[in-house]
Amino acid sequence: MQTTSPAAPGVRPALPATMRALRKSAPGPGFRLEHVPVPAIGPNDVLIRVKAAGLCGTDLHMYGWDHWAQRRVKPPLTIGHEFMGEVAAVGAAVTAFAPGDRVSAEGHIACGICSLCRTGQAHICEHVKIIGVDTDGAFADYIRMPESNVWKLDPSIPDSWAAVFDPLGNAVHTVMAADVSVKSVAITGVGSIGLMAIPVARAAGAAKVFAIDVNAQKLALAARVGADATFSATQPDLVEEIVRRTGGDGVDVLLEMSGSGSAIDNGLAMVRNGGVAALLGIPSDEIEINLAERIIFKGLTVLGINGRRMFETWYQTQALVTSGRVDLTPIITHELPFEQFDAAFDLMKSGAAAKIVLQL
Amino acid sequence: MQTTSPAAPGVRPALPATMRALRKSAPGPGFRLEHVPVPAIGPNDVLIRVKAAGLCGTDLHMYGWDHWAQRRVKPPLTIGHEFMGEVAAVGAAVTAFAPGDRVSAEGHIACGICSLCRTGQAHICEHVKIIGVDTDGAFADYIRMPESNVWKLDPSIPDSWAAVFDPLGNAVHTVMAADVSVKSVAITGVGSIGLMAIPVARAAGAAKVFAIDVNAQKLALAARVGADATFSATQPDLVEEIVRRTGGDGVDVLLEMSGSGSAIDNGLAMVRNGGVAALLGIPSDEIEINLAERIIFKGLTVLGINGRRMFETWYQTQALVTSGRVDLTPIITHELPFEQFDAAFDLMKSGAAAKIVLQL
Amino acid sequence: MQTTSPAAPGVRPALPATMRALRKSAPGPGFRLEHVPVPAIGPNDVLIRVKAAGLCGTDLHMYGWDHWAQRRVKPPLTIGHEFMGEVAAVGAAVTAFAPGDRVSAEGHIACGICSLCRTGQAHICEHVKIIGVDTDGAFADYIRMPESNVWKLDPSIPDSWAAVFDPLGNAVHTVMAADVSVKSVAITGVGSIGLMAIPVARAAGAAKVFAIDVNAQKLALAARVGADATFSATQPDLVEEIVRRTGGDGVDVLLEMSGSGSAIDNGLAMVRNGGVAALLGIPSDEIEINLAERIIFKGLTVLGINGRRMFETWYQTQALVTSGRVDLTPIITHELPFEQFDAAFDLMKSGAAAKIVLQL
Amino acid sequence: MQTTSPAAPGVRPALPATMRALRKSAPGPGFRLEHVPVPAIGPNDVLIRVKAAGLCGTDLHMYGWDHWAQRRVKPPLTIGHEFMGEVAAVGAAVTAFAPGDRVSAEGHIACGICSLCRTGQAHICEHVKIIGVDTDGAFADYIRMPESNVWKLDPSIPDSWAAVFDPLGNAVHTVMAADVSVKSVAITGVGSIGLMAIPVARAAGAAKVFAIDVNAQKLALAARVGADATFSATQPDLVEEIVRRTGGDGVDVLLEMSGSGSAIDNGLAMVRNGGVAALLGIPSDEIEINLAERIIFKGLTVLGINGRRMFETWYQTQALVTSGRVDLTPIITHELPFEQFDAAFDLMKSGAAAKIVLQL
Repeated sequence: MQTTSPAAPGVRPALPATMRALRKSAPGPGFRLEHVPVPAIGPNDVLIRVKAAGLCGTDLHMYGWDHWAQRRVKPPLTIGHEFMGEVAAVGAAVTAFAPGDRVSAEGHIACGICSLCRTGQAHICEHVKIIGVDTDGAFADYIRMPESNVWKLDPSIPDSWAAVFDPLGNAVHTVMAADVSVKSVAITGVGSIGLMAIPVARAAGAAKVFAIDVNAQKLALAARVGADATFSATQPDLVEEIVRRTGGDGVDVLLEMSGSGSAIDNGLAMVRNGGVAALLGIPSDEIEINLAERIIFKGLTVLGINGRRMFETWYQTQALVTSGRVDLTPIITHELPFEQFDAAFDLMKSGAAAKIVLQL
Repeated sequence: MQTTSPAAPGVRPALPATMRALRKSAPGPGFRLEHVPVPAIGPNDVLIRVKAAGLCGTDLHMYGWDHWAQRRVKPPLTIGHEFMGEVAAVGAAVTAFAPGDRVSAEGHIACGICSLCRTGQAHICEHVKIIGVDTDGAFADYIRMPESNVWKLDPSIPDSWAAVFDPLGNAVHTVMAADVSVKSVAITGVGSIGLMAIPVARAAGAAKVFAIDVNAQKLALAARVGADATFSATQPDLVEEIVRRTGGDGVDVLLEMSGSGSAIDNGLAMVRNGGVAALLGIPSDEIEINLAERIIFKGLTVLGINGRRMFETWYQTQALVTSGRVDLTPIITHELPFEQFDAAFDLMKSGAAAKIVLQL
Repeated sequence: MQTTSPAAPGVRPALPATMRALRKSAPGPGFRLEHVPVPAIGPNDVLIRVKAAGLCGTDLHMYGWDHWAQRRVKPPLTIGHEFMGEVAAVGAAVTAFAPGDRVSAEGHIACGICSLCRTGQAHICEHVKIIGVDTDGAFADYIRMPESNVWKLDPSIPDSWAAVFDPLGNAVHTVMAADVSVKSVAITGVGSIGLMAIPVARAAGAAKVFAIDVNAQKLALAARVGADATFSATQPDLVEEIVRRTGGDGVDVLLEMSGSGSAIDNGLAMVRNGGVAALLGIPSDEIEINLAERIIFKGLTVLGINGRRMFETWYQTQALVTSGRVDLTPIITHELPFEQFDAAFDLMKSGAAAKIVLQL
Repeated sequence: MQTTSPAAPGVRPALPATMRALRKSAPGPGFRLEHVPVPAIGPNDVLIRVKAAGLCGTDLHMYGWDHWAQRRVKPPLTIGHEFMGEVAAVGAAVTAFAPGDRVSAEGHIACGICSLCRTGQAHICEHVKIIGVDTDGAFADYIRMPESNVWKLDPSIPDSWAAVFDPLGNAVHTVMAADVSVKSVAITGVGSIGLMAIPVARAAGAAKVFAIDVNAQKLALAARVGADATFSATQPDLVEEIVRRTGGDGVDVLLEMSGSGSAIDNGLAMVRNGGVAALLGIPSDEIEINLAERIIFKGLTVLGINGRRMFETWYQTQALVTSGRVDLTPIITHELPFEQFDAAFDLMKSGAAAKIVLQL
């Protein structure tokens, strides 16, 4: 893309006028690789040269243009919200970053002035805008981010890992909210975030981690990344078996990462009285719940989990990775060049991939 | 009942052989006042001469012999679980109580040896037996209780208040679990426990208390006992109005005390992002919930509440009453002699009473 | 000060070039009222026309030029950190405020980029600058504040109350950190913050509040603002009496607001095993503590309290005041015109005042 | 000791009349091995045949008859509080245990009826009696324990590990109270409990563990059991180095296990603002603390830790051991026959041993 010739050492190349961007140009399925202007930045903004970006199920929803996408997305829009790169330029009032800094960024852009933002709960700001969904995203050579959303990366973190700090942060947020230290944990749904939650839960102190899914391949990967035992979600006596393996009590903690109604019902059933259920998976419809039996009589605590805490989750994520306690190698199953995005989405649809990273 | 003549001062009367008891003698509606043997006690038991007892919705379910009662209750059984009285006799190994002590008691008899009982969570013990439901209850002249369930009453607490420490404790448990200090609170459902929750929440530090119900009479009583504002549950723009009255955010805390599906849905909708919903009301059926919109995206914490914490809740209940912060006078609307139990249940069914206490 | 003529309705007066400011011009005792330039503002700053300002013990330390002041303060400096006023001008990037807004402000200017600032703990940022101590303060016609420090006031809050949201916030932070809901509370030291802590603790749900001080006048005021009982700190059997009045256990919570070594020792002694001690008062020297007896064997939780949580404490403070649960009228004992600052400091030194507010 | 002949299979041997016991017979140094009657048991008691017992620093204080021992201990007394064994007999009202059960026991016998005992805080009951200190202890063939203090052991736990669940529980209690999940942790003092705290903290999720002591041999053992780095307590720039190794912030958590005044001061200095310091080590005297700099301005949370939570700590301890996350093998440096107790105490005094277990 860049037609400028290589800069002399220590001299930063001038910014190009245009860049590649993977776009939803108009309502309908698919994305198109287009050339668009490099974003202009304001006084508190940072312009980032994207180097690697992760593919998410949300992107696939937009690719397929399903009901959720039709309601939420207003084309034209650049897609993508998981990424890392290098600071290319900073606004006049920016103090914490300089060109050349290696960074990732929080993709939820909160309003900064509501009561939630002002009390450490920006992750549930009601005015949040999500990059790649509500505003132009990261499947592009450059992205503009507010300074307060940018995260400086430790040099020891590989590009491909840094590119998926967003979903890894979802896993970390869920695990830390549930408090798994010296507890037994069941994870329902081991897609890429559920898989990440396994080494995260282990590193955060879980005494036992059970992984549950319908997909045998994912369960095999779950075992590889540290699950103490894995179970098919369709096993008829699943709840009884989990209860039996926890001394008759049930697990202390459920991490629900499937969004499936039956997984939620089974999951709540297998938590011990007084336990915690953290819900991250998004059901596509309303769900029937027996509140009396599943939550009230059991004295359960149910936590809705959204995004990543700004920026506790980022500090925790970094600590987990830099301490060597969490290894993403087996979970990032594919890395492809940016132009092969169609192949990447095909891979994703096939179920053969866990996490795919595009290189820009 | 007692046919023995009055004892000389300082001499305790001998125990009678039989006593009055309100019983479900056989499957089917209604109760019968019978004469049965006074219970024998073991080394760790306390025998209590019941002096006052509260009527609960659960008793009405058994009186009417509804589906729940048919499944759960095994006649013959003495009914009643809210009470106070005087210690009449103690087992050989009892050290904390002596005859003459004025007491109430926790009606959930936990097993004492499971992991929940041994970690301060006896209120959700899986082997719990509830007096008046699973074992002989308190609508009788005498009741046998394990020493560890008995609660010594402060002399300043009136008999009729002490008789309803069980439902008052439900309200206190719910309020304290939700942590209302300097927060806005909505209560959905102001039956007797919901009503009690109003002064309890105020005393516990709630900055604002909104009461919601379908019954205008109950709402009037809610205002009288301290609700800052009351609302009909059928008001069409209820959620919007609550949100408006909380600066556009929604309430910090929901105390759900109705068990109604629509109240739960509305209640969750009116809680602010990041808020807490404590569920005490028991829905009779499964409920449809939009988990994504109501709990997950909002980052809500949902707490299932059961019984009373042993014995934090009892200490808190006593502190609230003895400090004068909570006044039950307007809520105990009727006190009747034991023999008029049929009239009492008629009153209860009519909806004209909040809390009824029987005097034995 | 302002020599411009009154503006037409709806037209904002031009800013004057200079303003009054109470200054420490050079090392040594006393302050001088000077005329200095009105501060220039940057893109993210707000310029506030100060209307009322509170006097704090810290100001008195600087007035007297004690050891602490000599080490910490670098003249020339405008004094004052408790204030309210009206927005006079805003920087180009400011979005949340407009001229005319009635505001107060958090006087601790945190760096915004350290790990504490980015995880909701800006009140303990290591790079904090305090207005009136480290940078020019609020005893002046105008003060410049970063947008993120400014707080919009509810119209129902009187000017003089809004002027002391800083110390009131110290009281609220301490009370809320200790969690007083349905607990017994002892407050050691009822200077102006200790006095404010009494109605705050009551409103936040304290079941019982004991106030302790050496000054009988302050204790009388403590009783007037809601203390359930007051005690001379020199009463020989003080600890025993407090223990006796709490059923033999000791108080659940200590709020230490004196900074006195003997008050701290006595205070820790009167907390029950497993209780909480929140320390706000600053001892001027090292203190001898019997850690084993006072903290370790008792299983105490000791909380160091600094500043106000940004901005939980501000929301809580506003909720307490606007709900009518906290009344500052008896505590703001004096209001004086700005020019009478010397008289105000004399009053303060005399011990006759609780809280003094200057009107600008 | 047992003079009865071997019992037929399935037949339990009759209890002997007398047993061996290591006793402090009269004031003064040393212990004597005596023969005393086997304890009689009440209806709620369990008689345990001791099989292995751990030596503790407290035992050494009594052996040496120091000031603490002279004040606290009333001879004659059987010593010892860390042990495991087999149930030999149970009282008439005991339901949870039967002869033959393999058990350990909580050595703090709480009153069971005070407000702390009734609210899950029995570990800080004011009326607690400690076995081997206040009542006859475990360095004997048999010990009598209340049923509610006994802990059934998982069959996978080796005898010598089960014998030291008391000090291991101290470590677990401290680690879990401080909440180390994904945090950096400094441990000051790696005697046997400090050593145990290292694998416990790692298993509970600590991202980084620093061990500090004056003893190079203990530091070598600390590294062996999982410390990420070890430091001499006398290193001049220790605090700066720890701060440097935590990105300039300081550690999130201090676990103080030395009781030394300078370790406490250094330890508090190396905790980050807003961090947690859990104090388990018992200083022998009062300590000078700069509360302002070390605790208040930093917004620290300081936790006094005593004993083990009944029985959360025991469940956590068991989960840590049975999950294979904690290995005590390197820490139990010596196992000796009961009769060699004098050699064992010599070893302990020499500093060459970490934890010593006696076999009975």
